[in-house]
Amino acid sequence: MLSKNKIKFIHSLGIKKNRDSLGLFCAEGEKCVEDLFSYFQCQTLIAQKEWIDKKQFTAKEIIYINSAEELKSISSHKTPQPVFAVFEKREKKLIISELLSKLSLILDEVQDPGNLGTIVRIADWFGIRNIICSKNTADVFNPKALQATMGAAARVDVHYVDLVDFLKNIQKEAPDFPIYGTFLSGKNIYETSLKKNGLIVMGNEGNGICKDVERFVSEQLLIPNFPQGEKTSESLNVSVATAIICAEFRRRIL
Amino acid sequence: MLSKNKIKFIHSLGIKKNRDSLGLFCAEGEKCVEDLFSYFQCQTLIAQKEWIDKKQFTAKEIIYINSAEELKSISSHKTPQPVFAVFEKREKKLIISELLSKLSLILDEVQDPGNLGTIVRIADWFGIRNIICSKNTADVFNPKALQATMGAAARVDVHYVDLVDFLKNIQKEAPDFPIYGTFLSGKNIYETSLKKNGLIVMGNEGNGICKDVERFVSEQLLIPNFPQGEKTSESLNVSVATAIICAEFRRRIL
Repeated sequence: MLSKNKIKFIHSLGIKKNRDSLGLFCAEGEKCVEDLFSYFQCQTLIAQKEWIDKKQFTAKEIIYINSAEELKSISSHKTPQPVFAVFEKREKKLIISELLSKLSLILDEVQDPGNLGTIVRIADWFGIRNIICSKNTADVFNPKALQATMGAAARVDVHYVDLVDFLKNIQKEAPDFPIYGTFLSGKNIYETSLKKNGLIVMGNEGNGICKDVERFVSEQLLIPNFPQGEKTSESLNVSVATAIICAEFRRRIL
Repeated sequence: MLSKNKIKFIHSLGIKKNRDSLGLFCAEGEKCVEDLFSYFQCQTLIAQKEWIDKKQFTAKEIIYINSAEELKSISSHKTPQPVFAVFEKREKKLIISELLSKLSLILDEVQDPGNLGTIVRIADWFGIRNIICSKNTADVFNPKALQATMGAAARVDVHYVDLVDFLKNIQKEAPDFPIYGTFLSGKNIYETSLKKNGLIVMGNEGNGICKDVERFVSEQLLIPNFPQGEKTSESLNVSVATAIICAEFRRRIL
């Protein structure tokens, strides 16, 4: 049974400030919770006894329920999922020297939690283990974002930093390390040589990459529309553009 | 000023059944409404006088407002947009012989309106003018779907048909016309020769392509993850997968 206090506590974790100060976040759904168990410590696990027994998951606190219906008051899904968990966040240190042998993503103020979560899932698919976000990018532990990751948050580290400071450090440590960005005035990605390792900057949904970040970009890329030059949508959704670019980087070295 | 009756009428168009029986749908936002004007007849246009005068749009009925705030009661956005319109649907006939010289998309029960809208926007970017949907695919005139199209619904025709009948007709008329589909057991798309024209089938978010449709697919494709064989997300979001596939088809003939 869920106590009133527990419901109130879980609701409070819907707010980023509380997630940050307590170092906790919530997750829902069998697949998502199961994936997160491989990486995060579970504080509270709420599910039917059979499920917990079968999975043999341990948590500091376990609350048994009889049906998903009981989770209606705490679920952020339309149809409540049969499993709900509160996990402890863990911060993975961002080590610049390690990034230099990898392909990583940089997000400059991606605001929609759904877009962020989808990008985490894309990163996971393409073996990108680090996403470096500006501080005003959506929170990956926002329930909507976490839902869109489909569990990929257990395999991709999302870091929140001052992007300008971070990029300055990268440039200082490795002046030739490629920093790619997408621009509508960029160069056709299919006619550009791409390095195996580097950083790919994706910008805000409405405004793209801000000027302060743009000046660090060494290679401006464009996903060409088809037929080229024809009147079409002005841009692609940021998660869609991320997917096409990551796929192209990986295709080149497959 | 918006009358109570008008508000009630607009709310009624939030329901698919009413949109279908009246042949009307609603759109919001300057960019979206402006794009739709190029293709659809406007029944009611609601905006500030300056905007309407500047754009010189005509509609059967024009309602002036003083600020976006007045649209709060009818808006499906978090922040109401300054322009709202009711358009008349128009049905474009689906002519099979015309599809044979084109690349088109088939959606088999894509349920999330946001995914559908994003796919319409992707199709537009890649010059795909027809999307053929199973009848249980989300409605492109659902407010969330339309919002995600970002105006692309004016340039892409979305048809709702019995997919099995449609595919039978295609096979009868052009037995060799390629029908591609994505499957986790498919063949690496980058190692598959792709025809310029054909049909690309994308499946339901949870279950993929159904058996009845699968048997028409002549070429099963897979977007390989990276590094291949590593534990990763089980799949990509359907709109993300559509984007990567459409980009690859177009890249081959750029």
